[in-house]
Amino acid sequence: MPMKTALALLFALAAPALADEGMWTFDNVPEDQLFERHGFVPDAAWLEHARLASLRFNDGGSGSFVSPEGLVLTNHHVAMGQLQKMSKAGRDYVKDGFYARTRAEETACPDLEINQLVSYEDVSARIHEAVPSGLPPAEANERRKAATAAVEKECSDMTGSRCDVVELYAGGEYWLYRYKKYTDVRLVMAPEMQAAFFGGDPDNFVFPRYAFDFAFFRVYEGGKPVPSAKFFAFDPAGPAEGELVFVTGHPGSTSRLLTTAQLAFERDTAGPAILKTLERARKNYQEWTARGAEEARQAKGGLFGVENSLKVRTGELLGLSDAKLFAKKEADEADLRARTMKDPALAKEAGGAWDEAAAAAKKLAARYGVYRTYAGGRRAHSMTGHAETLVRWVAEVEKENGKRYKEFRDSALESLGFRVFSAAPVYPEMERFLLARKLEEYRDDLGAEDPFVKALLGGKSPEDAAAAALAGTKMGDPAFRKSLVAGGRKAVEASTDPLVAFARRIDPFYRAQRDWYEDEVESVATTAGERIAKARFAVYGKSAYPDATFTLRLAIGRALGYEQGTTQVPFKTTLGGLYARSDAFDGRYPFDLPPMLAAARGKADLKAPVDFVSTNDITGGNSGSPTISRGLRLVGLIFDGNVESMVNEYLYGEERGRALSVHAGGIVEALESVYGMGGLVKELEAAAPKTGDPHAAHH
Amino acid sequence: MPMKTALALLFALAAPALADEGMWTFDNVPEDQLFERHGFVPDAAWLEHARLASLRFNDGGSGSFVSPEGLVLTNHHVAMGQLQKMSKAGRDYVKDGFYARTRAEETACPDLEINQLVSYEDVSARIHEAVPSGLPPAEANERRKAATAAVEKECSDMTGSRCDVVELYAGGEYWLYRYKKYTDVRLVMAPEMQAAFFGGDPDNFVFPRYAFDFAFFRVYEGGKPVPSAKFFAFDPAGPAEGELVFVTGHPGSTSRLLTTAQLAFERDTAGPAILKTLERARKNYQEWTARGAEEARQAKGGLFGVENSLKVRTGELLGLSDAKLFAKKEADEADLRARTMKDPALAKEAGGAWDEAAAAAKKLAARYGVYRTYAGGRRAHSMTGHAETLVRWVAEVEKENGKRYKEFRDSALESLGFRVFSAAPVYPEMERFLLARKLEEYRDDLGAEDPFVKALLGGKSPEDAAAAALAGTKMGDPAFRKSLVAGGRKAVEASTDPLVAFARRIDPFYRAQRDWYEDEVESVATTAGERIAKARFAVYGKSAYPDATFTLRLAIGRALGYEQGTTQVPFKTTLGGLYARSDAFDGRYPFDLPPMLAAARGKADLKAPVDFVSTNDITGGNSGSPTISRGLRLVGLIFDGNVESMVNEYLYGEERGRALSVHAGGIVEALESVYGMGGLVKELEAAAPKTGDPHAAHH
Repeated sequence: MPMKTALALLFALAAPALADEGMWTFDNVPEDQLFERHGFVPDAAWLEHARLASLRFNDGGSGSFVSPEGLVLTNHHVAMGQLQKMSKAGRDYVKDGFYARTRAEETACPDLEINQLVSYEDVSARIHEAVPSGLPPAEANERRKAATAAVEKECSDMTGSRCDVVELYAGGEYWLYRYKKYTDVRLVMAPEMQAAFFGGDPDNFVFPRYAFDFAFFRVYEGGKPVPSAKFFAFDPAGPAEGELVFVTGHPGSTSRLLTTAQLAFERDTAGPAILKTLERARKNYQEWTARGAEEARQAKGGLFGVENSLKVRTGELLGLSDAKLFAKKEADEADLRARTMKDPALAKEAGGAWDEAAAAAKKLAARYGVYRTYAGGRRAHSMTGHAETLVRWVAEVEKENGKRYKEFRDSALESLGFRVFSAAPVYPEMERFLLARKLEEYRDDLGAEDPFVKALLGGKSPEDAAAAALAGTKMGDPAFRKSLVAGGRKAVEASTDPLVAFARRIDPFYRAQRDWYEDEVESVATTAGERIAKARFAVYGKSAYPDATFTLRLAIGRALGYEQGTTQVPFKTTLGGLYARSDAFDGRYPFDLPPMLAAARGKADLKAPVDFVSTNDITGGNSGSPTISRGLRLVGLIFDGNVESMVNEYLYGEERGRALSVHAGGIVEALESVYGMGGLVKELEAAAPKTGDPHAAHH
Repeated sequence: MPMKTALALLFALAAPALADEGMWTFDNVPEDQLFERHGFVPDAAWLEHARLASLRFNDGGSGSFVSPEGLVLTNHHVAMGQLQKMSKAGRDYVKDGFYARTRAEETACPDLEINQLVSYEDVSARIHEAVPSGLPPAEANERRKAATAAVEKECSDMTGSRCDVVELYAGGEYWLYRYKKYTDVRLVMAPEMQAAFFGGDPDNFVFPRYAFDFAFFRVYEGGKPVPSAKFFAFDPAGPAEGELVFVTGHPGSTSRLLTTAQLAFERDTAGPAILKTLERARKNYQEWTARGAEEARQAKGGLFGVENSLKVRTGELLGLSDAKLFAKKEADEADLRARTMKDPALAKEAGGAWDEAAAAAKKLAARYGVYRTYAGGRRAHSMTGHAETLVRWVAEVEKENGKRYKEFRDSALESLGFRVFSAAPVYPEMERFLLARKLEEYRDDLGAEDPFVKALLGGKSPEDAAAAALAGTKMGDPAFRKSLVAGGRKAVEASTDPLVAFARRIDPFYRAQRDWYEDEVESVATTAGERIAKARFAVYGKSAYPDATFTLRLAIGRALGYEQGTTQVPFKTTLGGLYARSDAFDGRYPFDLPPMLAAARGKADLKAPVDFVSTNDITGGNSGSPTISRGLRLVGLIFDGNVESMVNEYLYGEERGRALSVHAGGIVEALESVYGMGGLVKELEAAAPKTGDPHAAHH
């Protein structure tokens, strides 16, 4: 514990209540802000511990080690993709949960990769050197890709680790992040879905909330649990209200450095289009769900994801449509532009960047419908998605490493293969249904005469075209996918598999749009962003944090309730509250109690905490992040933000935006009194520091 | 049960979901709306039963008979004025509750009058005849007062009952309501204030809500419980969600027939001024409260009332500032005006009314500050309030009955005396503090040179002036007040009591403003309102209900949850939810559990309902109203509306506006498991119809 603490506490009481803003990189923790607001500044050992105990779930989420034996905690909704893939008809781990009571029962996940950030270094000089300012955007982009790929390759060749060059401050800095990869990850425990997602879609992004949204995995190496010396020991007491808490996790992306023109594009063009796509997807999944129990099981994961995104996007768009917020952005931008113009050298380099970014946004807006349709994703884990990826893969790897699409660079191929060769089950009937809908939507949006639409339909109806594309495909077999990659471009071109043929028809359209976007929009925006970021550095120094990049960040906050409407929202909820909310709806879906949670009634402690809120600055990708005390104890598990926090995408600072955590004590109570996982509780307890440990008494 | 029911049910399923709007008089129940929406039309016997079982609390609230032995149910917050007056230092019935477990322990209230509407008849012809159209407003007003007073006097002389002429449809109709008066009312049971008002100010006007806001009285006559043949038997099962429920109570006032110019006056002038007064009053009470436990006890009732009004007024003003709502009002008004102008006779009579109403509103706005200060209330139950009333009383009764201020007419004097001669305790120290603040506010608002301010301060500071006005006054003694009335104008003029002298100084200022208001504003508005109401009758017929007038109304609705933000609000809450909300705040005020409710934990049924919401159209004054089933069983007890329903003052029809009831089953559970009032539960059970009764199975 740093020596500053006691002294600073007195000071903190008098300090003004500044916002707990920021997703800070570990190389740039805001010591002054921490000292002044909280009287606590983490030292190097604290930061190293927190970094090594924090994990990234490569399919989109965060987690952490919670015992020295490789035990990992994350959200049920982060684990759900794996649960879904591991389930079969008649054995539904999503619905019923999963309970390994011995190590032998811990079951390998089909394609889960977990990363641990073992080192990071500033490589800005190397990248900036390779890309002198003043180059035409397309060439600068090429050079940047090449330099980035070289740094990554050198690192991975030397260390065998996963190496990512991370762009920060919109190109103001580049860092090389080296990750230890874990791919033998086994499922240990997941509660019933209805306990993890109690209140369903209505209560999603809402507080008070009653969700046991957690799951446990264990990382193995060489057939044994990996020793994890740095971990967060559970503290079932959780935080006191008002207590300082940190979140160490992997926020996916934010758009806080976007210019107002770019934000206007998000608000007026991209946002509404994405909402429309999501609303259609929800409708499609709902229709499939309505067909029967097995169909509902198949659709569950996809529907969950879509409903979740829908609330996020709606919240973002609401925030972006907030005139006050937008005016603040405009004022901030005007200030930065004015200061930039006052310095002749800076003005020369960056003065034009805002107008260039605006022009690029305008260009993209003009053909956004076509761009998004041709080059948009068609569900990563579907057979269609695999086919598209494989067609692109065999062509890309023939190119020089630096000239490939980012996801096909040598340094990324292992992780990509891990996903593409996954043995997760496929659902051909559901996929045919959804693909037909997708084709129908393309036709409705762009017209039957659009060349892409014509190429995909080939004169058929959407239903027939989807059926033809999927009829007899072997794409469901991972061995077939591997054989295509092994056979290279020749094998893919020669394949008579109908889905491969379908993907071959998509490919030129996809490439044309993506190349146009990268050359005409992305490169301009990147160059402009770099220059604006440079101006920002020159004007304000490195007192800011960079936009989120799905890399490790530290968020600072306090466990704290808030006001809503004319009443108060408590900072935590209890198990008694969960049962009461179910009773208030007479146990009606989605407020029904799952069997084991229902059976625990009368046995479990009604005062046990379930969830709590804190002011930490988080966003999507933080799901599964540990919420920790200054003593490095795990007091909670981030699983959501309230709807008032969705504006975090563009700006933090709302009085009522809150991060939502499952309470550490709630997890322990659920394990013990609901799910009979006493063994797991013993492991967590054994991992806790004994009395006398300097971290034990943290509040 | 009317025969229409079964047939209509089929029809109702197909009927469009019209709003459950309306506070209907018992002579004009909307049979078509009931038939179409609910497949149930109450017959004459049903209406008579409901009317005679429903009661009015004369100090502002509603109630009902719930047993054949005069047992009356109302809200704790309606009872609170009495509880406060019956408490003494060391015996705090507000905080600790009151529990009569035998008839002998039932304790008489100091000044509670309860009214039962025994008959009503249309006297429009008599009033309209006495006030021919075309008279100058002041003269019309004089004549109307005289005619009204004559009708009331004739009725009360003949029957000995309380007789009120009620103006409906802004003068479109006049009805004579005859009430049986009950003045020997004894307190039977009140729960702890913290159980009645759990969640305090934050949760006031909020749902989900957990308030046991009920109290029981018993009406006596001749020393014995009055036989109450018509009563509502408790149904602890409460309503099913979606079930038809009625509220029979006394909504105080609404402004639904106001013109848009009058509403703009409320929004821009009166509303903000009233809010400012209330905010000051809250601050003053809070300061007094902070001085100590005894001071807090003294201020509790007043503070409660002020905070309550503050939320109501805030909600109203929000609704009135809703541009969409205001535009709807404007469109409605434009339609009525256009239709009025199409009929030459109607146009001649009423065409100018809107502009006249607007002119009167403008006149009032121009001197609103002075009017409100001189003629506004100075707390009815304070000694200062009594003094002002007495000075006015002795002068008014010397006038012809028809020329007096309304509250001093013969028919009203008995009730007025009942209040003014109350033996309720006074708090001279608190009153001195509050009066000083009031005087300070007058000076700040109008300036030290204002003649009223000068007359009240007499060259002193506000503190000194208040101290002088109260020093040695005998106004705290009811006998002294009686002696002044008995002595008449001479006694009042000769009195050397400093508070009487103070009130004498106020009186001319008060009269000047009130007379100006009645002649220049009220009379014009009344005349305009009468003509607009006439136009309304002519154009739309009597398909509408009149504004609320603190007279008996029937409101129709369904027990129904709603959506809020992005989540669902259940239609009811449970006892488990109450304990959970307390736990979520770690039992912190105002979410602390009072001793008896805390002690019942583990014993009481957590699934027992506490409160529920329904769509009935209610407003202030409805507090304590029974919520009844079609089978005339009491399923709930109105105690509040949510904040979304505050706009009811001006317009009903919000999707999320709801009436809040204490659940009948919650009352029974509290009596039995929390407050040991098994005897009372037995009386309620004995009153319930036995199996086979046609009203027994109502859902």
